Amino acid sequence: MQQVARFLADNSDSFVDALKQFLRIPSVSASSAHRGDVRRAAEFVRDQLLGAGLSVRVVETEGHPIVHGSWLEAKGDPTVLVYGHYDVQPPDPLNEWISPPFEPTVRDGRLFARGATDDKGQLFTHLKSLEAWMKCTGRLPVNVHVVIEGEEEVGSTSLDRFLEENREQLRCDVAVISDTSQFGPNMPAITYGLRGIVACEVTLRGPNWDLHSGVFGGAVANPINVLAKLIGALHDDRGRVTVPGFYDDVVPLAAAEHDRLEKLPFDEADFVRSLGVTAIHGEAGFSTNERRWCRPTCDVNGILGGYQGEGPKTIIPSKATAKITCRLVPKQDPEKIIHGLRTHFERLSPSSVKLEFQTFHGCPAHVFDPTSPYMSAAKTAIRSAFDVEPMYIREGGSIPVVGSLKQILRVDTLLLGWGQNTDNLHGPNEHFSLADFRRGTLASAHLWHELSCAGAMDR
Amino acid sequence: MQQVARFLADNSDSFVDALKQFLRIPSVSASSAHRGDVRRAAEFVRDQLLGAGLSVRVVETEGHPIVHGSWLEAKGDPTVLVYGHYDVQPPDPLNEWISPPFEPTVRDGRLFARGATDDKGQLFTHLKSLEAWMKCTGRLPVNVHVVIEGEEEVGSTSLDRFLEENREQLRCDVAVISDTSQFGPNMPAITYGLRGIVACEVTLRGPNWDLHSGVFGGAVANPINVLAKLIGALHDDRGRVTVPGFYDDVVPLAAAEHDRLEKLPFDEADFVRSLGVTAIHGEAGFSTNERRWCRPTCDVNGILGGYQGEGPKTIIPSKATAKITCRLVPKQDPEKIIHGLRTHFERLSPSSVKLEFQTFHGCPAHVFDPTSPYMSAAKTAIRSAFDVEPMYIREGGSIPVVGSLKQILRVDTLLLGWGQNTDNLHGPNEHFSLADFRRGTLASAHLWHELSCAGAMDR
Repeated sequence: MQQVARFLADNSDSFVDALKQFLRIPSVSASSAHRGDVRRAAEFVRDQLLGAGLSVRVVETEGHPIVHGSWLEAKGDPTVLVYGHYDVQPPDPLNEWISPPFEPTVRDGRLFARGATDDKGQLFTHLKSLEAWMKCTGRLPVNVHVVIEGEEEVGSTSLDRFLEENREQLRCDVAVISDTSQFGPNMPAITYGLRGIVACEVTLRGPNWDLHSGVFGGAVANPINVLAKLIGALHDDRGRVTVPGFYDDVVPLAAAEHDRLEKLPFDEADFVRSLGVTAIHGEAGFSTNERRWCRPTCDVNGILGGYQGEGPKTIIPSKATAKITCRLVPKQDPEKIIHGLRTHFERLSPSSVKLEFQTFHGCPAHVFDPTSPYMSAAKTAIRSAFDVEPMYIREGGSIPVVGSLKQILRVDTLLLGWGQNTDNLHGPNEHFSLADFRRGTLASAHLWHELSCAGAMDR
Repeated sequence: MQQVARFLADNSDSFVDALKQFLRIPSVSASSAHRGDVRRAAEFVRDQLLGAGLSVRVVETEGHPIVHGSWLEAKGDPTVLVYGHYDVQPPDPLNEWISPPFEPTVRDGRLFARGATDDKGQLFTHLKSLEAWMKCTGRLPVNVHVVIEGEEEVGSTSLDRFLEENREQLRCDVAVISDTSQFGPNMPAITYGLRGIVACEVTLRGPNWDLHSGVFGGAVANPINVLAKLIGALHDDRGRVTVPGFYDDVVPLAAAEHDRLEKLPFDEADFVRSLGVTAIHGEAGFSTNERRWCRPTCDVNGILGGYQGEGPKTIIPSKATAKITCRLVPKQDPEKIIHGLRTHFERLSPSSVKLEFQTFHGCPAHVFDPTSPYMSAAKTAIRSAFDVEPMYIREGGSIPVVGSLKQILRVDTLLLGWGQNTDNLHGPNEHFSLADFRRGTLASAHLWHELSCAGAMDR
């Protein structure tokens, strides 16, 4: 392991250069215009795995390809499945980036680019730690499957089928994913819970075209005004979501877990300052960490209608559209929630507008028990690399693959985040601390060793 | 007059060609990119007036120039001020135009282009009727000032100053504006009332940048959700506007006027069908014509926030913006209403978002008495050209200059609309019936004669 650690230290700069190459590929999976770039990113991952000494195949899907690397020669040792995604979120709003999203730039020890943290930078720590073990020792301490997909940001539509079709081949003991965050700077964390998600797009159509608001205003429904009213009605005055059946299956937090969350170091003033908001805001009766990790939400992610140019324009718009997502907590059924959302809009929508309701991917929340030997292995590995004890936390985001891995391959996932949740994931100026990148790579290298020991104890 | 009518008939095609030239100039006053085009449109109007034999000057302002033509040699006859505007609304949404907005195209006897009706096509009827009188008789039956501005669609900001600085020179007996509509096909109308307007833009700012909706959702205010709630609260369940003080000064319609409105031929099913809406919609207890002519409104003309691209994007947007206008009725004070709007948003906006409130131009409503000799002259002129009796109607739109003409020059305005309110004013595929263009020009030619007679009776 010392030899591996030295190899990582010696090659640190070249790893950053390779990561920059990866980040230069605009692999925006949501945009059909970037289809070719998404494939280039898959090929880049393939070449990295081949360079590390793994067997690799690029598996075609109906969407973007899945890269599958493996090394299975550690007889008797556990098998680990490492998952990541090489696709990224759209870079909009472009004009808010200080340096262009696909021209990786280092400022103040941080690497700025779309995907720097989510997830190219984080998955790269595992590719490089595997490469280090192979180059230093000619083998790995554990058997490894590496599965890197290109559709995570658009719902991982092809992944389940891949997992199902390769269920036997991918048999493993535990999964590892680095697509979450530390709890704060130098506060590495193991995430034992994720929220689920449902997504939809609501369009209200009024007149066939934009009408003069003087000639017609007052006599026809304005789709923006109506949509605003329906969205406004999604929450009551206490910040609770009014969607029918929304809280039916939500289980209150156990007292012990509530206490553990309350004890986490959390500076609300600093939270407010770091985001630039004027105050916190959310469901009455819950703390900020409960609100973002343990309570369901309903957020509009985008809204559009009518005139957007300079100055006023006096029209009744012909339509208005909103993109809406709900974050879910354990026991909430995505199907039931999306049905409730549809019902909300159908019930409140007046007959003077036409309602269109389109749904996107969804997945349930996932929480697992933090007491397995693999969890202890992760804890030891992180402590070795970061020199501090990792915290146990939950996360407000959704990683649908965690549910798929549990359901299809029957394994728990170690969610080991090396980045910070202030790294502007999904926003402009996304970045990754190079110190976190290096420590994450070292922790990953320790992890293969510790998982091997955990496997030995398990026997 | 017969000679004039023959001249108009003989030159009908060349008038349409000249109008097309006018319509090819994209004189969008709201867009600074079109500044040069707006000036070109002013110069086009200047050349038309010179060609008709009037004295002309192009008056520079802080905004777009005002073209002032005059012919004042009808000693003892009344003086008429003809107002129009050569600027047009932005052509968005561009992709909904069947033929490009600035490539005038005739289909089914209708001329399609931005400004075809509002107001290039309508003001052109007066330029051509004046030209006809001058070319046929070497003089006009009345004295005439023609004032054509280029800022009507952005609030006529320079016009009042022009009227004030030229108050003596512009002394006149009555004003004529064709910027309204007929009541329906072959139902010419004299409009004796207009609504006023106030306009504002509301922006709510949350976090400094778009946040990951998983990591932060539930713990910070979502500016779109909040804005939707505030907009939704602008109307109560009966469609009444909840802005503080909104109805304080609204005077109920007199029974006689109410009865006259009810007697107008109006087919609601046809209204619904022609707009492509599924049902009418508005303030409870009022008919469609009352709602759009005699009741105040509050409409969102545009809304924008968050992600607009393909597929979902899981963010909490950093801001959301809405453009809002209220249409006003007589006695409502624009200052008071805009103050009420600001109060609505300030009162309901939570401390977790920052509110920005910007106001644009506004003007009060205007209703005048339909019994002057000039009104009778207009009635006779219209009957002569259209072969039917014109109707007396009100209008839901706003023409701020009507108030300025009353306040500064102390004259009433004859609002003589030649177009139809289904001509897609302000929307895509704006058009003007060529038959209406021809009859409007003929009615205008009659009008100068009738106004001269009215002046004689007046003495």
